[in-house]
Amino acid sequence: MPKSPSGALLQGFTIERDSSVPIYRQLDASLRRLILDGSLPPGQKLPSTRELAQELGISRITVKNVYEQIISEGYAQAKTGAGTFVADGLDTEAFPQIRTPRHKDKPSGIEISSRARTIAASKSTARYGEVAPFRPGVPALDQFPVKLWNKYMAEAMVRDMRSSLSYGQVNGNADLREAIARHLADARGMKVNAERVIVTSGAQQAFVLIAFVLLNHGDTVWYENPGHIAGRDVMQTMGANVAPVQVDSEGLDLAQAIKRHPKPALIFTTPSHQQPLGTTMSLGRRLALLSYAQENNTWIIEDDYDSEFRYRGRPLPALSALDSAQRVFYVGTFSKSMFAAMRLGYVVVPQEFAETFAAARNLLGQNSSAVVEETMARFMEDGRFTEHIRKMRRLYRTRRDVLYEALCRDCSAWLEPQWTDAGMHMVAWLKGGIDDQAAHEALLAAGIESLPISLYCIESLERTALVLGFSGVDERIIPRLVERLAKILKELAGAGAG
Amino acid sequence: MPKSPSGALLQGFTIERDSSVPIYRQLDASLRRLILDGSLPPGQKLPSTRELAQELGISRITVKNVYEQIISEGYAQAKTGAGTFVADGLDTEAFPQIRTPRHKDKPSGIEISSRARTIAASKSTARYGEVAPFRPGVPALDQFPVKLWNKYMAEAMVRDMRSSLSYGQVNGNADLREAIARHLADARGMKVNAERVIVTSGAQQAFVLIAFVLLNHGDTVWYENPGHIAGRDVMQTMGANVAPVQVDSEGLDLAQAIKRHPKPALIFTTPSHQQPLGTTMSLGRRLALLSYAQENNTWIIEDDYDSEFRYRGRPLPALSALDSAQRVFYVGTFSKSMFAAMRLGYVVVPQEFAETFAAARNLLGQNSSAVVEETMARFMEDGRFTEHIRKMRRLYRTRRDVLYEALCRDCSAWLEPQWTDAGMHMVAWLKGGIDDQAAHEALLAAGIESLPISLYCIESLERTALVLGFSGVDERIIPRLVERLAKILKELAGAGAG
Repeated sequence: MPKSPSGALLQGFTIERDSSVPIYRQLDASLRRLILDGSLPPGQKLPSTRELAQELGISRITVKNVYEQIISEGYAQAKTGAGTFVADGLDTEAFPQIRTPRHKDKPSGIEISSRARTIAASKSTARYGEVAPFRPGVPALDQFPVKLWNKYMAEAMVRDMRSSLSYGQVNGNADLREAIARHLADARGMKVNAERVIVTSGAQQAFVLIAFVLLNHGDTVWYENPGHIAGRDVMQTMGANVAPVQVDSEGLDLAQAIKRHPKPALIFTTPSHQQPLGTTMSLGRRLALLSYAQENNTWIIEDDYDSEFRYRGRPLPALSALDSAQRVFYVGTFSKSMFAAMRLGYVVVPQEFAETFAAARNLLGQNSSAVVEETMARFMEDGRFTEHIRKMRRLYRTRRDVLYEALCRDCSAWLEPQWTDAGMHMVAWLKGGIDDQAAHEALLAAGIESLPISLYCIESLERTALVLGFSGVDERIIPRLVERLAKILKELAGAGAG
Repeated sequence: MPKSPSGALLQGFTIERDSSVPIYRQLDASLRRLILDGSLPPGQKLPSTRELAQELGISRITVKNVYEQIISEGYAQAKTGAGTFVADGLDTEAFPQIRTPRHKDKPSGIEISSRARTIAASKSTARYGEVAPFRPGVPALDQFPVKLWNKYMAEAMVRDMRSSLSYGQVNGNADLREAIARHLADARGMKVNAERVIVTSGAQQAFVLIAFVLLNHGDTVWYENPGHIAGRDVMQTMGANVAPVQVDSEGLDLAQAIKRHPKPALIFTTPSHQQPLGTTMSLGRRLALLSYAQENNTWIIEDDYDSEFRYRGRPLPALSALDSAQRVFYVGTFSKSMFAAMRLGYVVVPQEFAETFAAARNLLGQNSSAVVEETMARFMEDGRFTEHIRKMRRLYRTRRDVLYEALCRDCSAWLEPQWTDAGMHMVAWLKGGIDDQAAHEALLAAGIESLPISLYCIESLERTALVLGFSGVDERIIPRLVERLAKILKELAGAGAG
């Protein structure tokens, strides 16, 4: 019979009395480690509970409990009258990964899917984290009625506790879907029943659902160039052949697209306010696009990302409002009209896809928070959403005016701001061959976060530009920021000339 | 020059004075419809604003505003001194979908991806909606400290309003990831740095991320049979070849799996508490599985779905705690320990995957609510989570005892309940060849929602069983529900014999 371990081995038990880790947990960990690294080989007799307790100066009950635990897990075996032994059949020699802990080493021979490589190369990963002034798409978060929202949220949780704590409905809260359908009728001229509305955790998730349901690997997707950054990354990661289509004064250039990229499975477009150029798609182009989609059995994604903010005239009806043949998947988000952290958006799908999308949302585990859905439903029903939009529209218009004026005054030597009647950002075309990526980096180092238009491009444009978000920047500090911007552009232009 | 429309045509303008829709919107809609359906053909002169206002008995300003709107959108053109005309170049004949609105028809020629068909066939879609007693995996929602949670949530929103309204961090709130890492060290014996923790919106989303990053189309995934329903649906939908592996008394049957399904890319297992059988994987099997994964360059998903609830001894350390070679993706969820509506879970990934997973989460738009993440971080830091778990553990143990006793007393002629030391559900094996699907349906009709074990299976088992969730059912009504259950099983057995 093997002897119990010597005093030397007992030193392998490291017990620190002043540690915050309980003694029994320290002993337990030591024992496991000694067994797994082979210091206590299979069949080895363990010290008796009395012996070990004395050696380590700890309670015998503690030792006993730990022994019982490791016996119950199969690390050790109790033999009546003989003591406790390291379990046989634990051939630790065969487990090199146990013998030499390598927590800090990189495992060798890693193979990952081709998709993982696409993900690592995607550009949209910079979207989160710290945000500096002029980043496009950032709402005026300091103007959000937080207290009011909290009140609604608390009420929602109390009102129907059980259902609001459980999984939500498979296509989203029914009241919220009704409220969204009404909003779309009022604001976007769309007549849709609430069944066709699928709540998502934002526009991005809507794109994922659409690609997931509609696309087979290698399918061609027409994509505006320049166009929505994150949407493009989704399509590429889902295995689509993302085909760039130029944007002219009427919007997505249908004729060019037909010629260059036949048989698209899907068309991604931003008709209300082209992302990022700001073009509104003409009625003729809209009708032609719908007609093309129907005749060619192609689907359309209408990304209506910032249509709430139009500063002249009424918002145009959505492309989807003309779509009696139901070829359009209309995507909207509350990330920009409310706040991004709520993680709510929606997609209006053709009727016959309603069930499939609900199932896909469920399958992908993409439900948004049931409480937040319920809260947003009441917020909309009570007119709070419209009220907030209206307030922000006034504010953003002012911010646009201040930015445009400042850019014209201070930066006209280096850039040409493009007036916009809508949205949350402004395109400013760079003059004198200033590289937009270089400008982006230099500005970022100075605490200003415009995006280079090249980031939106699959194919380069003839001109370079910066995309400047104005909605999230206090109008009182815009002039100062633009002065700083002018200074940096001047340096860049000088460096380019020198 | 074409004449303006006759009085007959003017009747096409339907204005309802007592409608809740504003007059200008009614007029606007009428005009668009008449233009798009060809009643007002291209080049047709529109009535003057005065004429139309008189005819319809509405304000001339309203008409003027609507004309300006449709002109700005390209439906009509103003010719100075001559009036307003339907735009040329709107070849509405070419747009049959506009001419005959078919909102209620099904578009013809729909083609969807092969994936959409898999989704439609998946079984997990029944997971949401109404929940009847004994549905597995439902926590005691009426015992959740809603007020306390609301207090934490309100504080989280006020504390750091700006960052909590914005997009969260790409891998989840840093404090939450730290709190999860500490919890895993205390409760599951895992030593992981918080970088390796990726917050998800639940276990399901963790499975999606893993499949998305790791799997190529057609890769083999070992899957416990019976096993987790929704996880299987995810793997199938992501194009995996899901290979059933039997479960023996030591857990997933490694020897059988190696023989039947060589070269798996991924192994899905529930070592702490096999889903749904309840088996705990033996230490020997754990070591062999880790060794196999390392030698064969295979990854493991450890789904630790209900490890918080262990009613005898301490919880076993996770498989991941033995995994010094980092082959295991450890998945945890708060849907069962807290509540499902919060949509929070996590996956602990091998160090070298941390960045890729963060990028994938971002790309798929799968961020959970930043406010909820922040709230949960404080809830854990203050010990509230552990406190709630402890309370629920006592409660669920009582419910298990009551259910087991009632089943033994009232149902022993038709089923054999299997004792369990852990979790939120109990397996009850059916006797006398009662079909579990039939039993499920008959019980559901009577307001009792057990799941048939066949739903968990890729290949049929030799025996049939019902899976009964006890955690969400008040112990005072369990006996009555079991009486009802006995009555229905008796009828079924009688019908089968008859």
